[in-house]
Amino acid sequence: WNRVPRQPPGLLLAPHRAFSNNKIQVDLDESSGVAMMKFKSPPVNSLSLDFLTEFSISLEKLENDRACRGVIITSAIPKIFSSGLDITEMCGKNVEHYGEFWRAVQEIWLRLYGSNMVTVAAVNGSSPAGGCLVALSCDYRIMAENPKFTIGLNEAQLGIVAPFWFKDTFVNVVGHRIAERSLQLGSLHPAPEALKLGLVDELVPEEKLLEKASAVMAQWLALPDHARQLTKSMMRKTVLDRLVAHREEDIKYFINFISKESIQKSLRMYMEMLKKKK
Amino acid sequence: WNRVPRQPPGLLLAPHRAFSNNKIQVDLDESSGVAMMKFKSPPVNSLSLDFLTEFSISLEKLENDRACRGVIITSAIPKIFSSGLDITEMCGKNVEHYGEFWRAVQEIWLRLYGSNMVTVAAVNGSSPAGGCLVALSCDYRIMAENPKFTIGLNEAQLGIVAPFWFKDTFVNVVGHRIAERSLQLGSLHPAPEALKLGLVDELVPEEKLLEKASAVMAQWLALPDHARQLTKSMMRKTVLDRLVAHREEDIKYFINFISKESIQKSLRMYMEMLKKKK
Amino acid sequence: WNRVPRQPPGLLLAPHRAFSNNKIQVDLDESSGVAMMKFKSPPVNSLSLDFLTEFSISLEKLENDRACRGVIITSAIPKIFSSGLDITEMCGKNVEHYGEFWRAVQEIWLRLYGSNMVTVAAVNGSSPAGGCLVALSCDYRIMAENPKFTIGLNEAQLGIVAPFWFKDTFVNVVGHRIAERSLQLGSLHPAPEALKLGLVDELVPEEKLLEKASAVMAQWLALPDHARQLTKSMMRKTVLDRLVAHREEDIKYFINFISKESIQKSLRMYMEMLKKKK
Repeated sequence: WNRVPRQPPGLLLAPHRAFSNNKIQVDLDESSGVAMMKFKSPPVNSLSLDFLTEFSISLEKLENDRACRGVIITSAIPKIFSSGLDITEMCGKNVEHYGEFWRAVQEIWLRLYGSNMVTVAAVNGSSPAGGCLVALSCDYRIMAENPKFTIGLNEAQLGIVAPFWFKDTFVNVVGHRIAERSLQLGSLHPAPEALKLGLVDELVPEEKLLEKASAVMAQWLALPDHARQLTKSMMRKTVLDRLVAHREEDIKYFINFISKESIQKSLRMYMEMLKKKK
Repeated sequence: WNRVPRQPPGLLLAPHRAFSNNKIQVDLDESSGVAMMKFKSPPVNSLSLDFLTEFSISLEKLENDRACRGVIITSAIPKIFSSGLDITEMCGKNVEHYGEFWRAVQEIWLRLYGSNMVTVAAVNGSSPAGGCLVALSCDYRIMAENPKFTIGLNEAQLGIVAPFWFKDTFVNVVGHRIAERSLQLGSLHPAPEALKLGLVDELVPEEKLLEKASAVMAQWLALPDHARQLTKSMMRKTVLDRLVAHREEDIKYFINFISKESIQKSLRMYMEMLKKKK
Repeated sequence: WNRVPRQPPGLLLAPHRAFSNNKIQVDLDESSGVAMMKFKSPPVNSLSLDFLTEFSISLEKLENDRACRGVIITSAIPKIFSSGLDITEMCGKNVEHYGEFWRAVQEIWLRLYGSNMVTVAAVNGSSPAGGCLVALSCDYRIMAENPKFTIGLNEAQLGIVAPFWFKDTFVNVVGHRIAERSLQLGSLHPAPEALKLGLVDELVPEEKLLEKASAVMAQWLALPDHARQLTKSMMRKTVLDRLVAHREEDIKYFINFISKESIQKSLRMYMEMLKKKK
């Protein structure tokens, strides 16, 4: 199937190879070519600048590793897949910080949505905002069939706006109408509704999530990599190219938007609300 | 939520403010920020030049009124929401008239599809052609669950063609395939079918239509206006910009098309048929 | 309905007119204006260069025949609609041959997807790859409700990639998400699944397929041709124009891709597998 040998013999390693850093644990099974990537940044796997940097490095390592053909992304924290972008990175910081943070967010999306690997999200908990984007950027989404777990791009609820490439990714998954309504309402969809809307591809009992993710991965890996990768690129290129072409503009727009006192106030109110919830 | 005070105190008015002209009745509830707009142009709320002009002025008034955040559009005439563009405006008139009429049609769509307000269509009767466009241009569509009421862009049935921006609006709601088939067949879909196709968002018994519309409106207004407006604009800008960029061209195309003897003949035949139906 | 007389009286022919060549049988019923086109190229109606040439000539004849308003496309071979592009035309031939072959494939799609006629596919058997494209290019698809019959763009299974205009046609029918998943997996969908995905419009028992196709055709022909044709063109023009604008580029890309030793090897392996299956 047009596959080159994965590794020169001199580099042969044990069938399992793990690397872990502070926030993400990665385990690559060389016999299957599948990596398991687990978010483990308590309490809620929020996408801080540190988290995004580690995420990006982990994806890059796997992408460049010929032993790796696919990655399953899941959470090591109960009940939460990822809470999305870390609001503290967007609140009360300086312009340089906002710029660096936003570039890191873009980077993750470009790597994940444009990955040559098969990417399966095993969504084992709630997944608002940026957490939802991570799932949307994968090739396939399986969610635990717990109606308490929700998923969605709820930015509007916080008084902020999902950037155009979040929107493009969402539209590519659920279509224009569902995206328009869901984004304007900042909806968080319980798992059964997410399935109905096409936001996730299937629901399984939580204890079978990883087993199912592996089965789906095997199905996708049965295809020749080269043809699958070219096909994926053909489907996603327009949307990926749009951000690449407007990346600096998008950073400036974000900095300008997030620096507004009215937006800062909205975010502070939202954080207060979250604290009270606890 | 980033809202400026709606009115300087000196302008404070009674909690309800109504304005009405010949063809449309508007009632703004300042406590909720919601206007009720009722088409009342017997026999069938057809979109004549006069109607469109009043519609446009009413929308502009509300849009510029800081006390208004949303509008519910419905009909005061039983069984009909709007019969669409007034065919008499397109038949046996001169070129200047056709141009003025078409500009007014464009104007309504640009105002409604691009409105900063939350727009909910309470479709309490049939809604062919231009009537369907009005509903499609809103943020949410609730229809009376009466299978005798139909909705659709049935222009092809009259031997005419929905313009590209009717089509774009339709595709954004129901997707390419359903739009392609429905437009070519000039289908008028009974309410239950319209729901199934996604042409309307929900059906309710006719007597509960306005109550439901208010509840939906409240749900949409729970979001901060600024974020919701930017999100809406992001979703609709491409399609709105396309007409703005080609507006004069579109008018010329319409004038040229509608002036053809073959088209005039089709429209006369259609009007004869309508008369016989009565 | 804005119809010109179909034929000058001097050319009046018998109500049925048939023309047939080696691989395709065409029968035009002049009273209804409907042609029946039957693929009869055993064993599997594969789209060889010869087949494509005859297909193209047949479509051109009908398109230019004022007596013909619609065409029903079906197969005279049991269990197979069309097996798609003939792999032997893409294997072990020279560059000129690949170019000529690919131009013929483009030609068929441009004619069929852009046809002024109403085109109904009566899919009475399996329809992989190019066979699926033929069906997708029609205005309406009816499939025999036999779960043993499958349909889909399974190019990725062969290690090759569906060209962008196959993809565009597919996306226009089933939407972006379903297309993305189905193309990457090279899925062949059994008839019931094809219906669920919107890949075909309806299923009927095999013995009722042609009867149903005629009824659907009559429904589409009830509309005035001119309005329907302009509407169809409005829906499909963007996608058609994209190939027209990049036609030579697309041929070069195909030649380059198919000439690769790795791809040739994949195709040879696939043909071996097919032979063993027999």
